[in-house]
Amino acid sequence: MSLIDMLFGRKPKTANVARDRLQIIIAQERAQEEAPDYLPTLRKELLEVLSKYVHASLDDIRISQEKHNGMDVLELNITLPEQKKV
Amino acid sequence: MSLIDMLFGRKPKTANVARDRLQIIIAQERAQEEAPDYLPTLRKELLEVLSKYVHASLDDIRISQEKHNGMDVLELNITLPEQKKV
Repeated sequence: MSLIDMLFGRKPKTANVARDRLQIIIAQERAQEEAPDYLPTLRKELLEVLSKYVHASLDDIRISQEKHNGMDVLELNITLPEQKKV
Repeated sequence: MSLIDMLFGRKPKTANVARDRLQIIIAQERAQEEAPDYLPTLRKELLEVLSKYVHASLDDIRISQEKHNGMDVLELNITLPEQKKV
């Protein structure tokens, strides 16, 4: 499945990059101009969910939003903090 | 950006497939075995968010979850209903 290779396969996995990572991609294709834009809502709600469950600081989250061939694409890359024993 | 081409570029956009679509991909790479698994949580919360904002029935949502090279990948494909004037 080469999509996944593209997501995470850019560099070989070595011991010194052994961090937990989470990548979220939301792509919306609006066939009709007046169709609602869900990305701002989903982005906001996702960040709320992530802040509840994932103890990452905002510095650890990279967000990009761009248009591509008429599609709106939102990408979140989160480097998860090292596991703390509780 | 070929990732996006892969997401939606499989077939040419023609008038008869002009539906609004939303695709969500969440990939989690767990470097440590004991790292928490966020996918079930995110899947549940995403479906809750979608049910609030996106008036799609469950029939319109295809969910797949698989493992790929030690990564957990969750994919949601939603075909949005035709716009109703309100």
